[in-house]
Amino acid sequence: MTDMDAVNLDAMLARFTEHWSPKSVARVNDYDIRIVKVAGEFSWHRHADTDEFFLVLDGQLTIQLRDRDVVLGPRELFVVPRGVEHCPRAGAETAVLLIEPRDVVNTGDAGGELTAEVETLA
Amino acid sequence: MTDMDAVNLDAMLARFTEHWSPKSVARVNDYDIRIVKVAGEFSWHRHADTDEFFLVLDGQLTIQLRDRDVVLGPRELFVVPRGVEHCPRAGAETAVLLIEPRDVVNTGDAGGELTAEVETLA
Repeated sequence: MTDMDAVNLDAMLARFTEHWSPKSVARVNDYDIRIVKVAGEFSWHRHADTDEFFLVLDGQLTIQLRDRDVVLGPRELFVVPRGVEHCPRAGAETAVLLIEPRDVVNTGDAGGELTAEVETLA
Repeated sequence: MTDMDAVNLDAMLARFTEHWSPKSVARVNDYDIRIVKVAGEFSWHRHADTDEFFLVLDGQLTIQLRDRDVVLGPRELFVVPRGVEHCPRAGAETAVLLIEPRDVVNTGDAGGELTAEVETLA
């Protein structure tokens, strides 16, 4: 009926080291469940057509908005509404779970060298 | 630009005690992010039109499929594909994060007394 196995997030996180390069670990309809390791500052960008979901697994993520910062620790989540400019940053390495439509590019409208292909881990 | 606050899953879990009654804690486009506490056995059901995502936060969840069981501990996830019959069960109280289209009813095609309205916590 289905041959998918359970996905252990810690096992998946152990499979890569690079930052700002989301990996797909599951699919739900047209959405990807992605994990990403981040450190330092990303770039300011927006997604015109989709909200973007962040759940911190380990570490601390600051989602900079133009009018304020949202700070997330483990088991804290935030949804950046579509069209809202944001710039994630993390002091130390931080692991984040993302939920996004499959076709979403990490840098949104901004593009540039941080744009990453989404690799599939599971 | 957005007045949503960060959502702390532990604070949200502390706000209710009932089992098998999902609570919405965030929205991503047309999807709900829901949390639910479960214990004991649910009912066999299927969702004809959508996959269903389970991420265990605390405890242990067994997702019974007709041909096997999938056992999930904390930080483990599984996606039940659309149309696949399943029946969740948990020995002790277990907390789970769900991702589902907003219009999904917890009992799928089965209905019955376990069917719950989805309350919004955040």
